Amino acid sequence: MSGSVIIVLLGLLFNSIASQASPCSINGFPLVRNISDLPLDNYGRPGLSHVTLAGSVLHGMKEIEVWLQNFAPGSCTPIHRHSCEEVFVVLRGNGTLYLAAESHGKYPGTPQAYPIFGNSTFAIPVNDAHQVCNTHNLEDLQMLVVISRPPAKVFIYEDWLMPHTAAKLKFPYYWDEPCIQSSVKDEL
Amino acid sequence: MSGSVIIVLLGLLFNSIASQASPCSINGFPLVRNISDLPLDNYGRPGLSHVTLAGSVLHGMKEIEVWLQNFAPGSCTPIHRHSCEEVFVVLRGNGTLYLAAESHGKYPGTPQAYPIFGNSTFAIPVNDAHQVCNTHNLEDLQMLVVISRPPAKVFIYEDWLMPHTAAKLKFPYYWDEPCIQSSVKDEL
Repeated sequence: MSGSVIIVLLGLLFNSIASQASPCSINGFPLVRNISDLPLDNYGRPGLSHVTLAGSVLHGMKEIEVWLQNFAPGSCTPIHRHSCEEVFVVLRGNGTLYLAAESHGKYPGTPQAYPIFGNSTFAIPVNDAHQVCNTHNLEDLQMLVVISRPPAKVFIYEDWLMPHTAAKLKFPYYWDEPCIQSSVKDEL
Repeated sequence: MSGSVIIVLLGLLFNSIASQASPCSINGFPLVRNISDLPLDNYGRPGLSHVTLAGSVLHGMKEIEVWLQNFAPGSCTPIHRHSCEEVFVVLRGNGTLYLAAESHGKYPGTPQAYPIFGNSTFAIPVNDAHQVCNTHNLEDLQMLVVISRPPAKVFIYEDWLMPHTAAKLKFPYYWDEPCIQSSVKDEL
């Protein structure tokens, strides 16, 4: 008797786990999603809060992916480049976009610095090495970020003098890592 | 002498006009743009305020386009469909997404209604007829909208019972109309 109780309880437990929305399921989210209900994480990057609002791996998007990101004071993206288009919309805060616009040299070189601020927007020229930093002392920097052709295929530079050919492909990217499927990797 | 003064003044005037950012020039905007400086218009649609933050026609985007839109109480998008992906991020306000998810019939039919609200996000399934309305009595509905493969190629329905084959292509779309180039039309 106690054995069948355990089996029933185990069955209920597994059933309960299975009916929960998987964090990696493209069917685990309603059509209209409350952003506060979506998974929020720093994915191992201090100062970052990242939410994928509409993504390839999470939601089956094929052409665009939208993120909501928050950078604490002093935190930055890596120095990186990608061949997809990328648009930022700064919702609040202040920071700096570093952009090495001359991608024909052997390495990015000293980037130009552009102030970014709440209610500003900018698009990154494809394949140009860039970095976005919260350069404010106190306030968070909150941005909506849109990329094309997800999931993100990103080449990371250790510094601005690293040759383009030495920049290292980071795939899957931080937030895709927990859920990326081998079939997606194969399509790269 | 007075003749050459006039010529110099005319020269300065034309030079000044030429150096102003054309509203249709892909080179007329700085890299980081203050959203308040971008052209805002209703493009003939009562209750709408539309700003293209990063666009194909205005800024040379090829894969994604980002809009900031405000809908006054009672105002709506047309009932429409498109084969590109589209993501909405609701910044503030409340409204309703009407979606005719079954696109295999001859016409959209009665749509499902989904409440949308500040801090919510949703993606429109490609080719499904849909309409977004501000169904609130008092507050504006403000949204960021992202589409793929710009400029937008949109089929408009007069009502939910209009056959898919009768929906009319609106190209260029409202905000692209003042600036669309014939070369872009040829690529459609």
